Amino acid sequence: MRDVIELQNAPAILSSAAVCGKKEFDGPLGNAFDLHSDDDRFGEDTWEKAEGEMQHLALGLALSKARLRPDDLGAVFAGDLINQCTCSAQGLLSYDLPYFGLFGACSTIGEGLILASLLCGGEKPYLRRAAAVTSSHNCTAERQFRMPVEYGGQRPPTAQWTVTAAGAFVVGQKDHGPYVSRVLPGRTVDRGIRDAANMGAAMAPAAADTLFRFFSATGKRPEDYDLILSGDLGAEGHRILRELASAEGCDLSRNYNDCGLMIYSRASQDTHSGGSGCGCSASVLSVDILPRMRKGELKNVLFMPTGALMSPLSSGQGQSIPGIAHLIELTAERPGTAKTGTGMGKEGD
Amino acid sequence: MRDVIELQNAPAILSSAAVCGKKEFDGPLGNAFDLHSDDDRFGEDTWEKAEGEMQHLALGLALSKARLRPDDLGAVFAGDLINQCTCSAQGLLSYDLPYFGLFGACSTIGEGLILASLLCGGEKPYLRRAAAVTSSHNCTAERQFRMPVEYGGQRPPTAQWTVTAAGAFVVGQKDHGPYVSRVLPGRTVDRGIRDAANMGAAMAPAAADTLFRFFSATGKRPEDYDLILSGDLGAEGHRILRELASAEGCDLSRNYNDCGLMIYSRASQDTHSGGSGCGCSASVLSVDILPRMRKGELKNVLFMPTGALMSPLSSGQGQSIPGIAHLIELTAERPGTAKTGTGMGKEGD
Repeated sequence: MRDVIELQNAPAILSSAAVCGKKEFDGPLGNAFDLHSDDDRFGEDTWEKAEGEMQHLALGLALSKARLRPDDLGAVFAGDLINQCTCSAQGLLSYDLPYFGLFGACSTIGEGLILASLLCGGEKPYLRRAAAVTSSHNCTAERQFRMPVEYGGQRPPTAQWTVTAAGAFVVGQKDHGPYVSRVLPGRTVDRGIRDAANMGAAMAPAAADTLFRFFSATGKRPEDYDLILSGDLGAEGHRILRELASAEGCDLSRNYNDCGLMIYSRASQDTHSGGSGCGCSASVLSVDILPRMRKGELKNVLFMPTGALMSPLSSGQGQSIPGIAHLIELTAERPGTAKTGTGMGKEGD
Repeated sequence: MRDVIELQNAPAILSSAAVCGKKEFDGPLGNAFDLHSDDDRFGEDTWEKAEGEMQHLALGLALSKARLRPDDLGAVFAGDLINQCTCSAQGLLSYDLPYFGLFGACSTIGEGLILASLLCGGEKPYLRRAAAVTSSHNCTAERQFRMPVEYGGQRPPTAQWTVTAAGAFVVGQKDHGPYVSRVLPGRTVDRGIRDAANMGAAMAPAAADTLFRFFSATGKRPEDYDLILSGDLGAEGHRILRELASAEGCDLSRNYNDCGLMIYSRASQDTHSGGSGCGCSASVLSVDILPRMRKGELKNVLFMPTGALMSPLSSGQGQSIPGIAHLIELTAERPGTAKTGTGMGKEGD
């Protein structure tokens, strides 16, 4: 089963939490967030410190929901969009935990959940528990990738709105789910898109690559899942992925959604193509998907955070934008233990 | 054995390669590099593309030394210092591999080797083989963190010189070493250092934290190792770590060195406090340490890449600089298999 890793002794998501800004609180999922800040500042005097504080709060809330102390975690996997990922390093500093810094652009929570699950799963888990945390903030991202919001730059219809939110997840062994049953790390896919205001087009081919590889390796089909959920393709990327899938005979018309389309109201909130940012898929997973899995509304979900691996410099130098999409299969019930695959890589299976 | 993970079925470093620029080629280890570029450009028209090409070349050389194809790898872990780690994403694009982007500043090869080893070790390894790759380039780093080299900015004596080099390592199961026997992921440690031209001072306390935790958890002492090697503390951080160790009754005067002090000649190359950058520890490990382990000169080594988790923005906003140090125990012989510790985290051991 090439590249797909099936987790023996599947780890569970023990708890999660998400915090957000005003616009996200005003969106359709707003009431489900654990905490929000009306001025997006979270009591801090710079946007970057505010973003760090969001990670700090999200992990603290996730730990307290699971009645755990920081000390109960063996490692934290964290990242954000900001240069040198300083929001994560600064925000999580006081937890004093073994720290793995990640950069996967908006797909970061996918990387974090995959690595945390691999280290907490398997026949003899390396760690009892680990956390994955990520964040994005509209004001840190705008001034770094585009221009300070005060400049009032015009945005094209394909542009997305960077979500102000952070999500934290505690992974470990437990008797009830949701469980992480299989994972598939994404490959970087570059189809020559150079328009930094159209991330959906840059990321959709990566999402297609990951999804097709998963279906091909497992023999599963879209209808085997209650929900297939991409991270932040937005309206543009969502349409492209459906078209790419359709061309391969894969029907995504019924059970496919995108976190970037769920977090804001398209009717009443002007975000053009939808939400984006590391905090987008992380918070939608925490406030909407996991609760619906716990209630029994969703039994199995393919969660696929997407990322665009670019910078203003790489765009300025004329480079195209590689996309990436990491896939995580979530199941409400513990996956069957009779399976023998160990995900031993390419040659064996 | 808190936080220290002892690897059952210890994975080996199957092969490695390192490429460098002119100044590194002129240094004391220059002849041991696999390839160098006399103009630091590696045939590319921007410094960032040159840095990406260095990663591309290093991984290609490491694969060919192990007589492997890209397809034989289950994943690649990669990162660099540049905003949004674009050099790694662009440089490794053509290998078409499952990709985990990392940001650990100059400690990145530590993160990568730890994760690659964990996924290729254990009783039932998740992957047959994985790679860890990292790079830094003096000209990309100078203009991003400080100023373009053409400006001729003055550097204080505590400043370090960002190494132009990339290193790549292929990890997997094999009958001969060097083996990765134990790993200890670092914690972020912030002692209030705000001087971005004194990274050694910012990182040394993190190196001390990791080293003391390792000795305390394992009962080992400095004299149990042929070499203890930090990543890029430079002359300043090397001195501080020795003092911090001495205050704890831990004698690092005999077998402790720093990659940043090894890569350039202090007598004839003006690099002030020594080398730094993701490529520093990665390339010294590849061109000097692993060959000496294979020759039997070094039987066991504590390799501890260090990183300063800062950006010009975080410094500009008055934030201090958290350091981090990841530790990897390398042994020339396969470690005893009678040991029962599984590194199950904090409570169990």
